[in-house]
Amino acid sequence: MNYFGKIFRLTAFGESHGPAIGGVIDGVPAGMRIDTDAVQAQLDRRRPGQSVLTTARNEADRVEFLSGFLDGVTLGSPIGFIIRNTNHRSADYSAMADIYRPNHADYTYEAKYGIREVRGGGRASARATASFVVAGAIARQALETLGIEISSEVKSVGGVSGGISEMEAAIAAAKSDGDSVGGIVECRVSGLTAGLGEPLGGKLQAMLAQAMLSVNAVKGFEYGDGFAAAAMHGSEAADEFCRDCEGAVRTRSNHSGGIQGGISNGADIVFRVAFKPVPTIAKVLRTVDRQGNDVQLGAKGRHDPCVVFRAMPIVEAMTAMVIFDAVLQNRSARF
Amino acid sequence: MNYFGKIFRLTAFGESHGPAIGGVIDGVPAGMRIDTDAVQAQLDRRRPGQSVLTTARNEADRVEFLSGFLDGVTLGSPIGFIIRNTNHRSADYSAMADIYRPNHADYTYEAKYGIREVRGGGRASARATASFVVAGAIARQALETLGIEISSEVKSVGGVSGGISEMEAAIAAAKSDGDSVGGIVECRVSGLTAGLGEPLGGKLQAMLAQAMLSVNAVKGFEYGDGFAAAAMHGSEAADEFCRDCEGAVRTRSNHSGGIQGGISNGADIVFRVAFKPVPTIAKVLRTVDRQGNDVQLGAKGRHDPCVVFRAMPIVEAMTAMVIFDAVLQNRSARF
Amino acid sequence: MNYFGKIFRLTAFGESHGPAIGGVIDGVPAGMRIDTDAVQAQLDRRRPGQSVLTTARNEADRVEFLSGFLDGVTLGSPIGFIIRNTNHRSADYSAMADIYRPNHADYTYEAKYGIREVRGGGRASARATASFVVAGAIARQALETLGIEISSEVKSVGGVSGGISEMEAAIAAAKSDGDSVGGIVECRVSGLTAGLGEPLGGKLQAMLAQAMLSVNAVKGFEYGDGFAAAAMHGSEAADEFCRDCEGAVRTRSNHSGGIQGGISNGADIVFRVAFKPVPTIAKVLRTVDRQGNDVQLGAKGRHDPCVVFRAMPIVEAMTAMVIFDAVLQNRSARF
Amino acid sequence: MNYFGKIFRLTAFGESHGPAIGGVIDGVPAGMRIDTDAVQAQLDRRRPGQSVLTTARNEADRVEFLSGFLDGVTLGSPIGFIIRNTNHRSADYSAMADIYRPNHADYTYEAKYGIREVRGGGRASARATASFVVAGAIARQALETLGIEISSEVKSVGGVSGGISEMEAAIAAAKSDGDSVGGIVECRVSGLTAGLGEPLGGKLQAMLAQAMLSVNAVKGFEYGDGFAAAAMHGSEAADEFCRDCEGAVRTRSNHSGGIQGGISNGADIVFRVAFKPVPTIAKVLRTVDRQGNDVQLGAKGRHDPCVVFRAMPIVEAMTAMVIFDAVLQNRSARF
Repeated sequence: MNYFGKIFRLTAFGESHGPAIGGVIDGVPAGMRIDTDAVQAQLDRRRPGQSVLTTARNEADRVEFLSGFLDGVTLGSPIGFIIRNTNHRSADYSAMADIYRPNHADYTYEAKYGIREVRGGGRASARATASFVVAGAIARQALETLGIEISSEVKSVGGVSGGISEMEAAIAAAKSDGDSVGGIVECRVSGLTAGLGEPLGGKLQAMLAQAMLSVNAVKGFEYGDGFAAAAMHGSEAADEFCRDCEGAVRTRSNHSGGIQGGISNGADIVFRVAFKPVPTIAKVLRTVDRQGNDVQLGAKGRHDPCVVFRAMPIVEAMTAMVIFDAVLQNRSARF
Repeated sequence: MNYFGKIFRLTAFGESHGPAIGGVIDGVPAGMRIDTDAVQAQLDRRRPGQSVLTTARNEADRVEFLSGFLDGVTLGSPIGFIIRNTNHRSADYSAMADIYRPNHADYTYEAKYGIREVRGGGRASARATASFVVAGAIARQALETLGIEISSEVKSVGGVSGGISEMEAAIAAAKSDGDSVGGIVECRVSGLTAGLGEPLGGKLQAMLAQAMLSVNAVKGFEYGDGFAAAAMHGSEAADEFCRDCEGAVRTRSNHSGGIQGGISNGADIVFRVAFKPVPTIAKVLRTVDRQGNDVQLGAKGRHDPCVVFRAMPIVEAMTAMVIFDAVLQNRSARF
Repeated sequence: MNYFGKIFRLTAFGESHGPAIGGVIDGVPAGMRIDTDAVQAQLDRRRPGQSVLTTARNEADRVEFLSGFLDGVTLGSPIGFIIRNTNHRSADYSAMADIYRPNHADYTYEAKYGIREVRGGGRASARATASFVVAGAIARQALETLGIEISSEVKSVGGVSGGISEMEAAIAAAKSDGDSVGGIVECRVSGLTAGLGEPLGGKLQAMLAQAMLSVNAVKGFEYGDGFAAAAMHGSEAADEFCRDCEGAVRTRSNHSGGIQGGISNGADIVFRVAFKPVPTIAKVLRTVDRQGNDVQLGAKGRHDPCVVFRAMPIVEAMTAMVIFDAVLQNRSARF
Repeated sequence: MNYFGKIFRLTAFGESHGPAIGGVIDGVPAGMRIDTDAVQAQLDRRRPGQSVLTTARNEADRVEFLSGFLDGVTLGSPIGFIIRNTNHRSADYSAMADIYRPNHADYTYEAKYGIREVRGGGRASARATASFVVAGAIARQALETLGIEISSEVKSVGGVSGGISEMEAAIAAAKSDGDSVGGIVECRVSGLTAGLGEPLGGKLQAMLAQAMLSVNAVKGFEYGDGFAAAAMHGSEAADEFCRDCEGAVRTRSNHSGGIQGGISNGADIVFRVAFKPVPTIAKVLRTVDRQGNDVQLGAKGRHDPCVVFRAMPIVEAMTAMVIFDAVLQNRSARF
C-alpha cells in the first residue's frame, strides 16, 4: 500500500541506498503551470545540514521529472519523477546486517518479509519522505493558485516551547550528551472555503491524521483543541456562529480547528503533530542480533539530534496532498 | 468515500432519521463461524441509557443480517446488514431546519452539498457508528480465533483521571450545569504476532489514526508515548531489544506502542483517543440561521453529558477492522 | 471485490435465497432529483415472466430505498437499498446440495471458498444483477439530465438475426427441445460530449468491457467494428474527421464506436455483448457429485430458454454506471 | 486512473517522447527471485524491427530497476523502474501540432485536457505498453514458480487464418498498398488451480477484459466459446463434469474457457483479443486541423503494417498481471 490519496494520488518507491527513490503522481489536472524550481526548493528545505540545528551531512537531492509536463504545464497525464541516491556508503552498514537497532524498523521488517535491506533502513528510511515533499510541492502550487496557504511552526523541542534560542540550547545539550530530542510541529491551512472533506471514511481530519502518522517518527496527531478538549466542558469548547461584515457564516472561535463533521467550515485548519526523538543516538543501548547474542550499540558519526525542523516541509507536503485531493473530490459533491 | 479498509472493507450508509442505517462488509473470508448474538451484544454496549453515566433514552438497535452466512458460517460473499431507525420524532426538528447548531456539522454539510437532512444530524449523526460496531464485531470474532484481544478503558473524563466514582461526579456536575464533558479512551490490542501493517501508505498507526479520527467527536490520536515523546530524549524513549525464555525477540519496554516502522513488533499495541465534550448542551449558545438572524440556542430534553463510555465499543470496533484488514493484507507479504 | 466504479460506486450484496439482496451507492452527487418509480420500472424490465419470450415465473422485485434522499432529492450521502427475496422454495434445492450443475458456478465456488450456498446459485445467481439495475437506473437519470441517452437492442438470438418473429420461433424451438439459446445485445450511448474516459487504466472501453463481462452469461465484448476490425485494412477502418455545420469536429464514420484512445469523441458509443445460452436446460447432462459418483441431471420445472431480452436493462444499467462515473471523474481532468 | 490491479498493482507513467516512461509495481510479495534478464527479454519481444513481419525501426528499450530488490530477490517493497526514451526526433512532429490524425487520440485528448503532447501521441502512444510488459514479466515469473504458464498465438491477420506464410503475404500486400491489417491473438493460461477470481466486481473474465481493452488498438475480447456461444444451444455449450484418474473434478470440454461464475475451474483459460489495423498508413486520409481547415494526411516513413505479432508479449503481460493479482487476492478467500 505504497500510495496516498484518492484522485490526486502519489505512489512512491525507493530504498534509501538503492539507485533512486521516486514516485508517480496520478490525478494531476491538466493545465496547471508548475514551477519546478519551487518544487526543488521544498526538497532543499528537507535536506539535512542546512542550519546549526540540523546535522552537517549534505545530501543534495535533485528531483528529475520524467513525464506529465509540456513546457512547464501539466498534461493531465501522470507525473513520474526520481531522485537519485548519491550518498552510497554501504560499507558502513556491513556490521549491522545481523543486528536489530532499537526503535528502528529492522526487526519488524524482517518479521514481516523474511528479508531486509540493511543499508540505511531500506524502505523504512525517512528518505522516503523526499518523495512526499515532491508530490506535496505540486499540490501546494495548485492550492496557492486557489488562495490556500499552508504554513507550519515548531511549537516545542524536547519539552521546551520558548523561542528559537531556547530550543537550540535544548538540542545542543542533547547533542553533547550523545542524545536526541523530539518536538511538536503545528500546521495551519488558511484561505479555505467551507465544504472540503468527505463524510465518514474520508473526513478531513481522518485523512490528515493518516497522512501525518505515515511520516517517520510521528507519534500523535490532534486538531483544534485536540487532547485538551478531553478536559473541557462543552460550553468552553463551543464555536458559536456569527455573520461577518459580508454576511458570511463564521465561527467566533476555532476550537474545532476549522473542521466540523469532517468538513471544512472556512476557518483555518489547525493541527499539531508530535515527533519522538531520533532513535539513532551515540548513547549505548542494549539489543540482540539474529543469532540470539546480546549486543551493545551506540551510533557513530554525525547524526541529527532533532528532526523537527526538517520535518516542517514534510508535514506541509502531506497536508497539501490531502487538501488538494479534497478539493478535487469536492468537484463531485454536487450535481 | 463511505468506506473503510482495503480487503476487509465496510461500506456504510444511513441517515439517523431515515428508514435504516447499515452497510456491506466485503472481503470477509469464507468459513468463519460468527456468533450474531455477540455482534448484537457489541451494539448494545454502544446504546445510550444503559447506565447512570449515560442518557436514559433507549434506542433498541437490532441488527438484521441479509447475506453472507450459511448456518452461521461465512460464505466468502459480502455481508449486508441493516439496523432500522425506530425512534423517529421528526417533529422535534422542524424548528431547527434553518438554524446552524454550534459545533455540529449543520453548516458544513449545507456548505458542501447545498442540501441538508435536518433531522438528527442526518449522515453526520453519531448514529452512523452503529454500523462500525457491527462490522467491527465480525472482525473481532475473527481476531479472537487468532488469539488477538482488544480492550479499552476510559483514562479520564473532563480532566478527571481517578476512579469511576470521581468520573461520575465530574459528569454529574457537568449535567447539573447543563453542560457536558470530554474524555480520553485508551485502547490495547494484545496477542499480536510481529509483522502486521504495511509500509508507507498503510502503516498500522496511520490506519488506526484514520479510523479513530473518523469517529464523531474525536479530536486526537496518539500511540505509545504519543505527545509525551515530544518532550523526551532518545535514550528515554528507546525500546531496547532482548530475547525471552523461548528465544523470541521482545522489547524491554513499550514506548513504541507495539508498532515500529508502521509494523507490529509483537508487543501490545497501545493508543489513546481524545473525545471533545458533547456539543449538544442545555447552556444557551449564540448562533445564526440561514436568513442571517442571530439566534440563541439551548438544547432541550435529555442529552448525554458524556459519550466517552459509550465510545469504547466504537473505538474497539474500528480497531478490530483495522487489525483484521492488516492480518488479511499480510497474507500477501511473502511469496 | 463486490463493487464497481471509482467515484460513483456500487457495492452490492446478497444471495438469491437469503433474506434480501441490495447495495450501497456511494459517490452520488447531492441535488439530483430521482424518480424512484422510474427505478422500479427498470427493475420490472428485468423481471422474468413479462412476455411470451421469457419464463412465466413472476418475481415481483420491489426496491426499498433506505438512505440518501430528502423528498426525492439526493443528499450527497450514500444510497442504501434492499430488495427482499420473496420466492423462497428451498425445498427444491435439497437434492442438489452435493451435485455440481454443468456450466454453473457450483464447483468453482466450492473450490474457492470450501463452502457453498446451494439454493439458487447463492452469490453467483443472476439475481445479483437486480442490484446493478437499481444503481444503473440512478446513474441513468443523472445522464438523461445531461442529455445522454442509453438504448439497446437484441441483434440475434441463437444465431437468428432477423425480426422479432424469427427470434421468437428460434426460442420456441429451443424450448420445445428442452434446450436454450444465446444471443447478442447491442448497446448505444448518444448525446455524449467528447472527452469522457481516462487514459491507460480507465479507458472507457476497458470500463465497459469489465462491466459487461461482470454480467452473468456474458462471453464477449466488442466496440465499434469489434472483431470484424481484425479482418479489415487500415484504410477501411479509418474514421476521417470533418467539421459539421456548427464547426464542431466530427468523424465521417463510426468504426471507432465513439471512443479513441480510451476517450469519447462525441460520436455514439456502440458496443455489442455476447450471451451464452442459459445453462439450466431440461436436456439431460452428465456431471458428478461431491462423493465422486457420476450423475445425470436434467432441469425440471419452467426455465427461461433465453435471457437475452431480459438482459437489455442490465446491459443498459451497467453502461449507465460506467458513463456517469466517467462524467464525474472528468470533473478533475482540468485545473 | 493510471493503474491496474488490486494487490499486485502497476501504476505507470510516461509520454512517448518525454525523458522516460516507467512505473511502480506495488504489492510484490517478498522473497521472489526475479531474473531481470528474462524481464528484458520480454521487452525485446515487444520491440519493432525484429522480424520481416514488423517494421525495421530499432528501439532498444532498456529497463532500469530502481528499487524493490536485494541481490535479485524481492524485498516486499515497491519496484520502481524506468525505460529511457532514446529515439527523440521531435522535429518530425512539428507539422502535426495542429492536425488531428484520424483514428488516433489526438482530438479526444485535446477535447478532454485542453492541452496535448503532439510528439508521438504522448500518453496515448502504444509505447506505454512497454511498462505493462515489465510488470507482466515480474508477475509471469511468479506464476511460473507456481506452475502456471501463459502463451499466445496469432489466430488470424487481416482475415487470413492459415499458416505463417499466408499471414506474411497478407501483411506484405497491405504494406505495398500503403495500408495496414488487423488480427486476432489467442491467449492461453494453463496449470491453474480451481478457485481463482472474485465474484461480481472482480470476475476473472472481467479483469481480463478490462486489461485487454486497455491495450492500444484492441476492439474486442471473448473467452471460451465467446461470440460463437451466442449462436449455440445450451446443450452444445455445456461443459459436463467428470472425475479424472486422480479423482479430481474436470470438465469434459472447455466451452467455458476455464472460468465459471467468474472463477477458474482448473481447465485452461482461453480467450481471444481483436486488434484493429494500425491507423497510421501511407494512404491519404481526410481530416481537419484546429483552425478548421480540411487537411489531407498520409503517413511518411516506415510504419508497422501489422502490430499483432508484437502485441503477443503485451497480451501475455496483461494476463500475467491479472492472474497473479487473482492468486494474491485468493489468499484471503478462506479464513
